[in-house]
Amino acid sequence: MRDLKDHPELCAINTATLGFTQPLEAVIDAIARHGFGGLAPWRREVEGQDVAAIARRIKDAGLKVTGYCRSTFIPAATTQELRANIDANKRAIEDAAILGAENFVMVVGGLASGSKDVGSARRQVAEATSELVAHGRRHGVKIALEPLHPVYAADRSCLSTIDEALDLCDSIGPSANAMLGVCLDVYHIWWDPYLERAIQRANGRILGFHVCDWLLKTKDVLNDRGMMGDGVIDIPAIRAMAERAGYRGLIEVEIFSSGDWWTRPIDETLKVCRERLDCC
Amino acid sequence: MRDLKDHPELCAINTATLGFTQPLEAVIDAIARHGFGGLAPWRREVEGQDVAAIARRIKDAGLKVTGYCRSTFIPAATTQELRANIDANKRAIEDAAILGAENFVMVVGGLASGSKDVGSARRQVAEATSELVAHGRRHGVKIALEPLHPVYAADRSCLSTIDEALDLCDSIGPSANAMLGVCLDVYHIWWDPYLERAIQRANGRILGFHVCDWLLKTKDVLNDRGMMGDGVIDIPAIRAMAERAGYRGLIEVEIFSSGDWWTRPIDETLKVCRERLDCC
Repeated sequence: MRDLKDHPELCAINTATLGFTQPLEAVIDAIARHGFGGLAPWRREVEGQDVAAIARRIKDAGLKVTGYCRSTFIPAATTQELRANIDANKRAIEDAAILGAENFVMVVGGLASGSKDVGSARRQVAEATSELVAHGRRHGVKIALEPLHPVYAADRSCLSTIDEALDLCDSIGPSANAMLGVCLDVYHIWWDPYLERAIQRANGRILGFHVCDWLLKTKDVLNDRGMMGDGVIDIPAIRAMAERAGYRGLIEVEIFSSGDWWTRPIDETLKVCRERLDCC
Repeated sequence: MRDLKDHPELCAINTATLGFTQPLEAVIDAIARHGFGGLAPWRREVEGQDVAAIARRIKDAGLKVTGYCRSTFIPAATTQELRANIDANKRAIEDAAILGAENFVMVVGGLASGSKDVGSARRQVAEATSELVAHGRRHGVKIALEPLHPVYAADRSCLSTIDEALDLCDSIGPSANAMLGVCLDVYHIWWDPYLERAIQRANGRILGFHVCDWLLKTKDVLNDRGMMGDGVIDIPAIRAMAERAGYRGLIEVEIFSSGDWWTRPIDETLKVCRERLDCC
């Protein structure tokens, strides 16, 4: 397993970790200044801007773009709404191409508004993903399906486990190979009783690896995620599984923490992120 | 599938649904008065009391006891603590026998204090379960493993899926047959992408079936569970799966709802529970 200690260049910062309190330009510079190797920007920071200029700024700072975050939720109550969701994702994939992102991160969405039919939501996601993979191929952008913790099944992601994501990849067929894979976030997967088997199965298809921590006394399952080392996840054990399964990409820090890390100066958060690579 | 409408006798009330605001005797009488067929009492209502007298009171009210709730969490940081946890459960199993409970519900516990080793917690649970099944057999009490939603993996249950629970049953071996099975709660399992397959696999081993609902805007994953019909779970679809897998026991209403249902008079909560059998 790679040694991350004093190797921030092997790591990326997901800009959500810094709470979107600064302009992207300042965020890019700070991430580079702290020695990290890349970043994962969000559409809210990019759309409506000069995307090529952002791409240049990132490149000039010596940073890679890991995942471009993230898909518009897919499931919809009407075909019109479903089409709009897919089209929004196509435009985002085009921006991902301009950014030179290694992949476009898909958080697929939960139930359609007013629906209790999780099977229907999953079918919509499968069909949309197939179309988006084709669009990604045209633009040279890989699609990274990110299974989210089952606590979000209703409102954020009906795709809940690694196995389910791999089944979806398989269902799209061999034509998707090399352009479709999974993004693993320890927060979402650590509890899985079949984790090691599932990560092994993902061999060669792991496109991203996110770290943060699960706080024992989580106050808010969305926005009270912990800094690595402050929670209960055995992150090194999971990273070892991913690296045994061939993952060699950047280790990306993504912490949603409205009550704690987002309230601190970004330089402090970045400093602690770097120190806590020891816990990864 | 059985028709529950106007058939409260096919249903049981888990006493937690009523918020423990009344003495057990009043709770027993109210549940019977509303026409339900059984109840699931908690140890906090039973231990230190005359258990045989409680059993008589329940029987005289014409009610069955479904599950006896619930196990002391198993995983422990020391062998002494682990032994104490197992022994506490043995005593509870003896009370379950006196109550004539159909099973003893095991919520297995999360990580041991200070631990990040979920594998170790699972091994402790497996060993303890084996011992408790043997104890249950001696006392004529079945053990019902209840997988809890993965959101509780850290602090309440490292047993998170039906498949994991069935694997644990299988690992204990054929000697456990007929004395060990699973308790399914729609709140904990609805998100599972492999739900239908897992429930089918549980054929003949489903010892309990719990209903409540997952509120789309859940404020607290422990104590903000919804009344059936108020959330996003397709309860009839899941009950149909369980009944196709041979389940013929009572349908048990268990709602943890500190901010809503627990604040209401128990007669009101019971009345609404009965009405909402339509949604099950």
